[in-house]
Amino acid sequence: MAIPAQSAATTMATFTRMVKGQVRHYSAPLDMAIPASKQKYIPSSGSYPKGFSVSGTHVGVKASNTKFPDLALISSETPCTAAAVFTTNKFQAAPVQVSRNILQTRQGQGIRSVVINSGCANAVTGKGGLEDATNMGAKVDECHGLGEEPSTLVMSTGVIGQRLPISKILSKIPTAHSTLSSTHDSWLSTARAICTTDTFPKLLSTTFTLPSSPGRTYSLAGMTKGAGMIHPNMATLLGVLCTDAPITADALSALLKHAVSRSFNAISVDGDTSTNDTIAILANGAAGGAPVTNSQNSDDYRAMQTVLTRFTQSLSQLVVRDGEGATKFVTVRVQNSPDYDSAKLIASTIARSPLVKTALYGRDANWGRILCAVGYTQNVKDGVVVPDRTSVSFRPVDGSPELKLLVNGEPEQVDEARAAVILQEEDLEIVVDLGGGALGPQGAGGEEAVYWFCDFSHEYVTINGDYRT
Amino acid sequence: MAIPAQSAATTMATFTRMVKGQVRHYSAPLDMAIPASKQKYIPSSGSYPKGFSVSGTHVGVKASNTKFPDLALISSETPCTAAAVFTTNKFQAAPVQVSRNILQTRQGQGIRSVVINSGCANAVTGKGGLEDATNMGAKVDECHGLGEEPSTLVMSTGVIGQRLPISKILSKIPTAHSTLSSTHDSWLSTARAICTTDTFPKLLSTTFTLPSSPGRTYSLAGMTKGAGMIHPNMATLLGVLCTDAPITADALSALLKHAVSRSFNAISVDGDTSTNDTIAILANGAAGGAPVTNSQNSDDYRAMQTVLTRFTQSLSQLVVRDGEGATKFVTVRVQNSPDYDSAKLIASTIARSPLVKTALYGRDANWGRILCAVGYTQNVKDGVVVPDRTSVSFRPVDGSPELKLLVNGEPEQVDEARAAVILQEEDLEIVVDLGGGALGPQGAGGEEAVYWFCDFSHEYVTINGDYRT
Repeated sequence: MAIPAQSAATTMATFTRMVKGQVRHYSAPLDMAIPASKQKYIPSSGSYPKGFSVSGTHVGVKASNTKFPDLALISSETPCTAAAVFTTNKFQAAPVQVSRNILQTRQGQGIRSVVINSGCANAVTGKGGLEDATNMGAKVDECHGLGEEPSTLVMSTGVIGQRLPISKILSKIPTAHSTLSSTHDSWLSTARAICTTDTFPKLLSTTFTLPSSPGRTYSLAGMTKGAGMIHPNMATLLGVLCTDAPITADALSALLKHAVSRSFNAISVDGDTSTNDTIAILANGAAGGAPVTNSQNSDDYRAMQTVLTRFTQSLSQLVVRDGEGATKFVTVRVQNSPDYDSAKLIASTIARSPLVKTALYGRDANWGRILCAVGYTQNVKDGVVVPDRTSVSFRPVDGSPELKLLVNGEPEQVDEARAAVILQEEDLEIVVDLGGGALGPQGAGGEEAVYWFCDFSHEYVTINGDYRT
Repeated sequence: MAIPAQSAATTMATFTRMVKGQVRHYSAPLDMAIPASKQKYIPSSGSYPKGFSVSGTHVGVKASNTKFPDLALISSETPCTAAAVFTTNKFQAAPVQVSRNILQTRQGQGIRSVVINSGCANAVTGKGGLEDATNMGAKVDECHGLGEEPSTLVMSTGVIGQRLPISKILSKIPTAHSTLSSTHDSWLSTARAICTTDTFPKLLSTTFTLPSSPGRTYSLAGMTKGAGMIHPNMATLLGVLCTDAPITADALSALLKHAVSRSFNAISVDGDTSTNDTIAILANGAAGGAPVTNSQNSDDYRAMQTVLTRFTQSLSQLVVRDGEGATKFVTVRVQNSPDYDSAKLIASTIARSPLVKTALYGRDANWGRILCAVGYTQNVKDGVVVPDRTSVSFRPVDGSPELKLLVNGEPEQVDEARAAVILQEEDLEIVVDLGGGALGPQGAGGEEAVYWFCDFSHEYVTINGDYRT
C-alpha cells in the first residue's frame, strides 16, 4: 500500500547491496566467509574437555551446499551423564521428541554422543520424521559398536515441513565417526557445521577447578547457533556443552536448568521461540575427582553452578552478537526488584519491544519507550513497579558515569551530546532501577534480572521479508 | 556494527525519499496532506447524534504547529451517561488519572464534554501535570456555565515527560467552545485535531434502531487516532464515541468493555501499550425512547451490543490501516477453539510476531512462522493446541477458495503462484483452525477470536529509528 511492489523490491535489492559482508545463508554457510567485524568472536585455540572428540562433515543436506560441513558429531570415549532443556513450543520437532525420550528412558545416564544436522529441521514431519531422527542416533551408536539402548542425542535445524535426506545423512555418519578428533580445528569445524543463518561459528571453552580438589583442572567447552529465524528455514537455538568434570545426572539437570534460565532463556533476537530449540550438556568425568551432587549445601555444586551459568551467558551472548541485522548489543538490567520473576518479565518485555529496538537502532536516548515497556509488562506482581520509585539510566561500556534519564519517576534534563556518544558504541547497558518497589529503598537490593538483546534494523526486515528464492 | 554510522544514515535518508506521500508527523499534521491511498477512508458526510456539537481549534501545543487544529472539544447540550476504558500501563498519564476519577466520582453520569489536546501527552509530569489536566476540564465546564462538579473528561497525546503549555490551551478553550458546531466539517476537523502520527483523520458514523422502538432512528459517531508510537512523542490510542440513544451508565460501561475487548483490544500495530490509551463513550439520550439497561435478557441491550461492537471494530480497523509503515491489513481468525481466551492469546501472538509480520511484508506464504507462533503462545489452556488437529490457511479477500497451507498438522504442497496472487493484495485473512483441540471435531465450533494487524516494513524501522530532529 505505502510502497508499491516494484519499489519495495528495488528497495530490498538496494539494501542487500548496501549490507555486503553481512550476507545471510539459509543453511550451513556456503562460502565460509566470516564478516571482518565478527572475526574477533572466533577463538584461535581452546581448552577442550578430556575424552571428547568431535567432527564436522559435509553431507549436502541442502543440495546447494556442495562442500561445507553440515553434520556435527560430538562423542565421548566413555559414557556420560547428560541433561537437556528443550523448546516449550507445542509443535516439537522430531529430534526434540526423540532426544527427550532417550534422556528419560536412560535417566540421564549412559549417553555417548550428540549428532546434529543443519539444513533441515525435521519438524512437522510426522511419524517418518520420528523414524529418521531415531535412525540418525542409532547409526552413530552402531559406529561406536554400542548395542540396543540408544546413547546418542539428536538435533536438527533448518527448513521446516520437509523430510530429511536421511539416506545421505546415514551414509555419511561413518565418515563423521572415523574423523572424530579433539583438535581445536575439529571443534571449530563442528561448531560451523551446526550453523544456518549464523555469520560465524560460536565456540567457547574454559578451565575451572572445584573446591573439593583445587589442584585438578577441569575443562568445559560449548558451541551454539543463532536464534534468528529465517524463511524458508526456521533457524533454531541449539547448544551443546561438554565437560570432563564428574557430575551426577540429577545435579547436571538442575545445573543446566539454572544456567539456561539466566542465559539462553535471557536473550532475545526477535522474541520468537522455535520448534527445535535444544541445549544439551554431557559430563564424562574423565578428569577425575568426586562427583558433583545435587545439593545447594555442596561447595562443589555451588562452584559448578557459577561456572556453568557464566559460561552459558558468554555463549548465549554470541547469539545476540549475531542477531539478524543487529547493529547493537544491549544489556538490560532490572535491579532492586522485590521479586525476581517480575524483574525478568520486565527485562524480557523491554528486550522484545519493537519501539525500544528501533530507537536503539536509531541511537535515540528514548527512555519514554523503555518506561512504557516497564509499565505494560504482563503478570508483574503487585508492588513491584511504583512509578515514583522507578529510575532509568544508560551505563556506558567505557566505565564512565551512568547517564540518568529518569530518577524516581521524574524526567532528567538529558545531556544529548553525551547520549549521542554513548549510543554510538556497539555495546550499551540499560539499567532500570525499581527502587525496591512498594517495599521502598529500605527493602531494595534483593533481586536483579538481566537480559541481552539486539536492535531492529532495516536489515532485519530485509532478511526476514525476503522472497523465497 | 553491520552498517557503519554514515551508511545507516544515508540509508534512512534514501528511504525517507522513497516513501514520499507517507510522511509522518510528530504532532497534529502540519500540511493536512492526506496520502492518495488513504483518501478512501475519509467520509464525505455523516449521520451525527442529536445534541452533540464539536470543534477543532488551533492552539500550537507544539510551537512548530502554526495553524492546524490540535485541540478537540466534544460537547453535549444535555448531561450524558459516560464510560471509558483506560490503558493498563502502570505509568498512567495525568489525564487518565483525572478522567478516571471524574467517572468514578460522578458514577458515570452528568458528563457533558470531552476535551483533547495533541502534541503533548501530559505523561510523567507529576502533580503539576494532574493540575493541568484538571484545569483543562474545569475551563470547559466554566464555558458551559457549569458549577463545581467536574463534567468534562480529558485526554492528551504527544510528547511524554513534558508539561503542557497550559496557559495557551486554557486561553483557547473559549474559542473551542464558541465554535462548537454539528456539521460534518466540524466533526472531521475535530477528528483531525486529535491526530499525531496519523496520516489521515479517523471518523465514522452510523444510524441504528432498537427493538423496543423500531420507528426511531438513533445515531452513533466516533473518532480515533493511531496506535503506532513515535519518539519523541509517544502516540496513543484515543477514541471518543457519541450516541443519542438513552443508555444507563451501568449498561454503557458493560457495553463498552465488551466492544473494546473485541475491537481496540484486538488490534496490533507494534504490540506496545501507551501511558495514555483511552476510549470513552457518551450517551445523551437526545433521540428519546426507553433507556437501554444492563441485562442480557433485554433485546435492546443485545442489539446495542452488536451495534457498538461492530462499530468499534470498524473504527479500530482504521488504526491498523494507518499502522506505521504498514503495507498490509491482515485479519487473523483462530477458530474451533475449546476456549475463547486461549484463541485470543494465540491470535494476539501471531499478530505480534516480528517474523510473521516481516514475512507478510515480503509476501511470503510462510505458514511455518504462523504455526510456530501458535506453538509458543503463553498461557494457553491445556488441550487447546493439538498439533495433528491444527490447520492453517489463507482466505483471499476476493471470495475465492481458501489456500490450505497445513491440514491437521500435515504440510500441504502449496500452490506458490496462487499464494503470490493472494499476497499481492493489501488485505489478507489468515485462518488458524484448532479443530476443537483435545475435544476433537465433535466438540469443535464453539469459540473464535479475531485480531487485526499490519506488517513490519522497512518504513516502520525508518519511522521509529529516526533521530530526534
